[in-house]
Amino acid sequence: MAIAAKSMRPMPGESTRNRIVHIAMNLASREGLESLSIGDLAKELGMSKSGLFAHFGSKEELQLATIEAAEKVFGHAVLESAFAAPEGLPRLRACLENYIRYLEDCIFPGGCFFSAVAAEYDDRPGRIRDRIAISMRKWSDVLLEQAKAARERDELKPDVDEEQLVFELKAYTHEANFSRRLLDDGLALGQALKAVGSRLDDVASRAGRAALRR
Amino acid sequence: MAIAAKSMRPMPGESTRNRIVHIAMNLASREGLESLSIGDLAKELGMSKSGLFAHFGSKEELQLATIEAAEKVFGHAVLESAFAAPEGLPRLRACLENYIRYLEDCIFPGGCFFSAVAAEYDDRPGRIRDRIAISMRKWSDVLLEQAKAARERDELKPDVDEEQLVFELKAYTHEANFSRRLLDDGLALGQALKAVGSRLDDVASRAGRAALRR
Repeated sequence: MAIAAKSMRPMPGESTRNRIVHIAMNLASREGLESLSIGDLAKELGMSKSGLFAHFGSKEELQLATIEAAEKVFGHAVLESAFAAPEGLPRLRACLENYIRYLEDCIFPGGCFFSAVAAEYDDRPGRIRDRIAISMRKWSDVLLEQAKAARERDELKPDVDEEQLVFELKAYTHEANFSRRLLDDGLALGQALKAVGSRLDDVASRAGRAALRR
Repeated sequence: MAIAAKSMRPMPGESTRNRIVHIAMNLASREGLESLSIGDLAKELGMSKSGLFAHFGSKEELQLATIEAAEKVFGHAVLESAFAAPEGLPRLRACLENYIRYLEDCIFPGGCFFSAVAAEYDDRPGRIRDRIAISMRKWSDVLLEQAKAARERDELKPDVDEEQLVFELKAYTHEANFSRRLLDDGLALGQALKAVGSRLDDVASRAGRAALRR
């Protein structure tokens, strides 16, 4: 389980709870949330199982904390710098490009944490599935907000449907993650970047193209 | 485990091996291939574990047989009728529309069997992952073949890159499965159909548009 060392190494002085969640997050991006074992984690951390339990109370609480932590990592890697771009098409493009870069940089050792656990839980009703769905909806909402901001700024051609546009843009980025992880398809990230770029060019009005060039 | 009854009910007189694989396939589309339990399957079938083992020898062999069976179901539901359409853009469109219909009809109770197990195994090297990747590549190859047939028939505009086109079309269909399963997004299948239709319209030459209208 040398996985944690590969990317999100916990910082010295970090609280034990954070260290546990860091390791759980990296492990879950590869093996799934369901197979997280309190026993394995305790061993990795040199703690007793009961010591680990004291921090979370149950496996489900640990899983929920892991999703929350992953959401923070995602927010930091993908959203923070995108929000420096102007609202509308430039910010929409920045979010998508940052997401593709986040896949490229292997922020999580097992690809996109959320895509991995979403596929794992889509048929398992309960608190974990609900929490994952909330995270995925937040991401969709950010993209839709920016598409709507683009509309308000006249950056989109009149016939463009914002919801349809966001569906297509999200599709490119998820496909990149999928093809790269399963098919070892090294071209997928470039194809996703190209797809995002040309789709945004297609839908941009004259004002939109000007905003994207600025 | 009343799952089998929902869609792919084994036919009377079908061999025991086929019955086992049918039930395993439906279960795996919901719960994943890894959690297939020989014990649960044996119970469901009213067989002894050793009787079930006699058909497969190991859990891995059962998993491999399950993937092969799912490939046949997919071929029957998605590819067979698509191959009645003329080669090139019409057949490419038929493959994609059939795939979306296959999601709509819930051929497998847990959505697309392959998307589910692909996400489960993308980080688990071994024979199962390799076998799933073969299935997914076959599907990509069918689409790429038709895009190339379209090129040979001058059905595509000169600047269209066939690999890029197939990446984008696959992305729409996978996103539909994903949004529908996790986010209960009832619009996703319609959005995927619309995306496929307008992308094909965009890339079609005059000859391509004529072929799509025929």
